[in-house]
Amino acid sequence: MLIKDAGGEFALIQRLSRIIPSNHDTIVAGIGDDAAVIKINPKDDQYLLVTTDTLVANDHFKTVWAKPEQIGIKTIECNVSDIAAMGGIPTYMFISLVLTPKTTVEWTERLYSGMALSCKKHNIITAGGDTTHGEVEVISITLLGTVSSKNLCLRSQAQPGDWIAVTGALGASSAGLNLLSRDLPVSSYLLEKHLSPHCRLDAAQHLAPIVNAMIDISDGLSSEINHICFQSKVGAQIFAESIPLHPDVIEAGKTLGQAPIDFALNGGEDYELLFTIAPENFNKLKQTGLKYYIVGKITDTEEGCYLITESENKIKLQGGYNHFT
Amino acid sequence: MLIKDAGGEFALIQRLSRIIPSNHDTIVAGIGDDAAVIKINPKDDQYLLVTTDTLVANDHFKTVWAKPEQIGIKTIECNVSDIAAMGGIPTYMFISLVLTPKTTVEWTERLYSGMALSCKKHNIITAGGDTTHGEVEVISITLLGTVSSKNLCLRSQAQPGDWIAVTGALGASSAGLNLLSRDLPVSSYLLEKHLSPHCRLDAAQHLAPIVNAMIDISDGLSSEINHICFQSKVGAQIFAESIPLHPDVIEAGKTLGQAPIDFALNGGEDYELLFTIAPENFNKLKQTGLKYYIVGKITDTEEGCYLITESENKIKLQGGYNHFT
Repeated sequence: MLIKDAGGEFALIQRLSRIIPSNHDTIVAGIGDDAAVIKINPKDDQYLLVTTDTLVANDHFKTVWAKPEQIGIKTIECNVSDIAAMGGIPTYMFISLVLTPKTTVEWTERLYSGMALSCKKHNIITAGGDTTHGEVEVISITLLGTVSSKNLCLRSQAQPGDWIAVTGALGASSAGLNLLSRDLPVSSYLLEKHLSPHCRLDAAQHLAPIVNAMIDISDGLSSEINHICFQSKVGAQIFAESIPLHPDVIEAGKTLGQAPIDFALNGGEDYELLFTIAPENFNKLKQTGLKYYIVGKITDTEEGCYLITESENKIKLQGGYNHFT
Repeated sequence: MLIKDAGGEFALIQRLSRIIPSNHDTIVAGIGDDAAVIKINPKDDQYLLVTTDTLVANDHFKTVWAKPEQIGIKTIECNVSDIAAMGGIPTYMFISLVLTPKTTVEWTERLYSGMALSCKKHNIITAGGDTTHGEVEVISITLLGTVSSKNLCLRSQAQPGDWIAVTGALGASSAGLNLLSRDLPVSSYLLEKHLSPHCRLDAAQHLAPIVNAMIDISDGLSSEINHICFQSKVGAQIFAESIPLHPDVIEAGKTLGQAPIDFALNGGEDYELLFTIAPENFNKLKQTGLKYYIVGKITDTEEGCYLITESENKIKLQGGYNHFT
């Protein structure tokens, strides 16, 4: 049976986690959050965070569109974004590269230069790695991080009554990718958002002590809010007209004959943060000085996970971007 | 410039480590050992070990030869082998899978069943992972481990005067691979050694307190002894007639018209341990009850790294298996 016929990526992950379960006293959160959270030392207030991400040439990056430096930056930023979403800071990184007989030294060095820029920005120490050969370039990053128990933000911590907010405009990366794929002109804003996204580590550090659940938007708003609903056993309402969209995303929608909101809901790779916050913490949120956009509210689980349109229609929010379907 | 024209894998790693250096107070060993060694907590006697390994379909495993369970076992064993060679024990594992649109659910579940067997055997806790799609299957494993400072074995700890020993017969995996590649009959011993190798974690635990340098034989004896010479700034003499070879490896040499010792020197994936030990610790080695084979001795760095043949010829030992050349 092909993976798509078995329900796609998330159904497969559920099957696999029955074969190798991820449960142990020391695992605070395992498969199912942005990063694994491990209580290495029972006496220590700091948890170890671990995230891994694999990018495959032609699938996750295209060497014809992206400069190697941009690929390097994106690779690190999407991993840091996972650590940020847990409320943590990144510490040690391990790079595992698959290179092909046609990969040049120059390309690889420029890839590393991009990685070096992001590592420097986030104070990440590169501690090891592995280089091997294959038919297609693969970049696999393991990033460790650390978080104190009071700053830890899990997907499972949303509460009915919480407001749902995001840290920035959504859909730009996906709109850029769609235009690129069709050989259409792309604005520099959309191109930058797609090729060199920057994660919101600083914002996450300010948010971590005051929010309930937090997640980074790597697979689209619809997918992320479904993760939070599933893990927190809550429902959600997202207000369509509140989703922040950049004018270039609206323009891309017109060009492509697509509702711009689709890029935000079902696109991905925005690497903004989605968080839920109790109304009583709103003043603290304002005091951070961060930009944020309220996009919905957390409800009871029976109410399901819905998009509320301007005309007050309710549309069920599906899982968003799903590999293999 | 292609990687092979720039001197291959090790020259590339040196270039890349200039762009992203791996030096920090807390890194006891970084790029250049089997696993990275990090002193997470300055007050703690335990170090964190981290190793990552990436296996690419068609390159590192062939789905026509190997059952998915065997691929699963091999993936875990080769990572545990890296932790074992540091004197450590494995703790937490993270699996990052790239699957193709043609990968079946059954294959993936059987792969996981193989992994589960090895994880159970070595008490490894699976703490997270990532599943994505690509053109070719890629299995990337990150394995954490722990080691006390007194058990830590680095490649850089060999001393002139040490004896060099290995924990078992060598060359079987490579001989099996060579026969398989030429569609020739393969004995069950060689097939098992190639398709389902088992790492020597138990042996490593007994050796760690009494040896100087230790490394696992993943790229061939010649490559591993060169790593030790380079990191320890020593020379080495390997006695050709002392290298342990199974009768099936000798037979494979005859069939393939190749010196059987070549499989041991330049093959790889044996996952036995190579260690250096001071003569005064020999009694302790005997007391462990482990099988071991003395294959050479550590000399001063000026003496270089040589194979001494039965007729007392000296042959310079090259780097062994090198990706991209």
